[in-house]
Amino acid sequence: MSEAPAPHCTPQGKLCMPEDARRRASRRLSIARGHLDSIVRMLDDPEAYCVDVLRQIKAVQGALSGAGGVVLRGHLEAHVATSAGRGDTVELVEEVMEALRYR
Amino acid sequence: MSEAPAPHCTPQGKLCMPEDARRRASRRLSIARGHLDSIVRMLDDPEAYCVDVLRQIKAVQGALSGAGGVVLRGHLEAHVATSAGRGDTVELVEEVMEALRYR
Amino acid sequence: MSEAPAPHCTPQGKLCMPEDARRRASRRLSIARGHLDSIVRMLDDPEAYCVDVLRQIKAVQGALSGAGGVVLRGHLEAHVATSAGRGDTVELVEEVMEALRYR
Amino acid sequence: MSEAPAPHCTPQGKLCMPEDARRRASRRLSIARGHLDSIVRMLDDPEAYCVDVLRQIKAVQGALSGAGGVVLRGHLEAHVATSAGRGDTVELVEEVMEALRYR
Repeated sequence: MSEAPAPHCTPQGKLCMPEDARRRASRRLSIARGHLDSIVRMLDDPEAYCVDVLRQIKAVQGALSGAGGVVLRGHLEAHVATSAGRGDTVELVEEVMEALRYR
Repeated sequence: MSEAPAPHCTPQGKLCMPEDARRRASRRLSIARGHLDSIVRMLDDPEAYCVDVLRQIKAVQGALSGAGGVVLRGHLEAHVATSAGRGDTVELVEEVMEALRYR
Repeated sequence: MSEAPAPHCTPQGKLCMPEDARRRASRRLSIARGHLDSIVRMLDDPEAYCVDVLRQIKAVQGALSGAGGVVLRGHLEAHVATSAGRGDTVELVEEVMEALRYR
Repeated sequence: MSEAPAPHCTPQGKLCMPEDARRRASRRLSIARGHLDSIVRMLDDPEAYCVDVLRQIKAVQGALSGAGGVVLRGHLEAHVATSAGRGDTVELVEEVMEALRYR
């Protein structure tokens, strides 16, 4: 269910996304893009109804939130969980908190 | 700033989006789609960094929320505000609450 | 299920909450306050576990969101739905959008 | 600004909240409770206005979100960041994701 921790990525020690998370996030975001495409087309119709559009936007927001969850989980497993060993915990946590919009 | 209330749309009395809201929501969603596109491309890079991706996803979520706000405002002004006159208040409010995911 | 529209409240025409919504929101917020109380007590225990606290906070947030839904529904039914008749649609919608944190 | 990582808590190795996070979350939640109290009292007034109540509820939600941020940050720094060393990464991340309501 969850990818194995893959701490570093490049030989230079640059942190990057675990491949499985990258592939899965990409797939989900592609689907969300297709959905967003269909909402834009829906808005070409002068008889489009507001609440139908709102519902579709909410659905895409849910899909983006799911994709964000895939990325966050991969990051916590691969990078945050290993940060005490590398000594960059404070920076990594700060960054996550900021990306989640907690201050 | 806000479009004038345009209660009904079709001669048959079918409610549909005020044109100004439709045009503006469409423009915003097109921009969000382009942004989403660029995140999908960003994920082709094996060195993409999780937190950068998370931030971009958050930005698109903000854009969708802005587009949803345009649609909601148009709906409240054109349809909910006039519902007491038409007699369909309960249905319209129920629908809005459900679309906003309140129960 | 939904309260009957009760447009104005005071003889002076000041808009105020439909009584049913006021009573129900009060009951829900009182329960949320009790729940919040119990989280504060939980935090007196030096062995409290972070994730348990997070879960309880999320539960109270859900309860507040439910109470907010009761208030919003009452407002849409009693005041926004009747605003075209009174002529204050633009102000009321602006206010709702701002309270929902849409700009 | 951020508390130093304090991995375990009890001599038995039970994870618990870093004391600084616990104290700060408690203080913030106490303030939120007082605010919630004042909303409940506000609802005793038959002339309370819906949008004023909505705004106050939003403010308390913001306060709870801030308190949740304090708890989450402490948890990431003290427990998630050290999980690779203990070997409980997958469980801890699963738990965080679930508490944040990501699936």
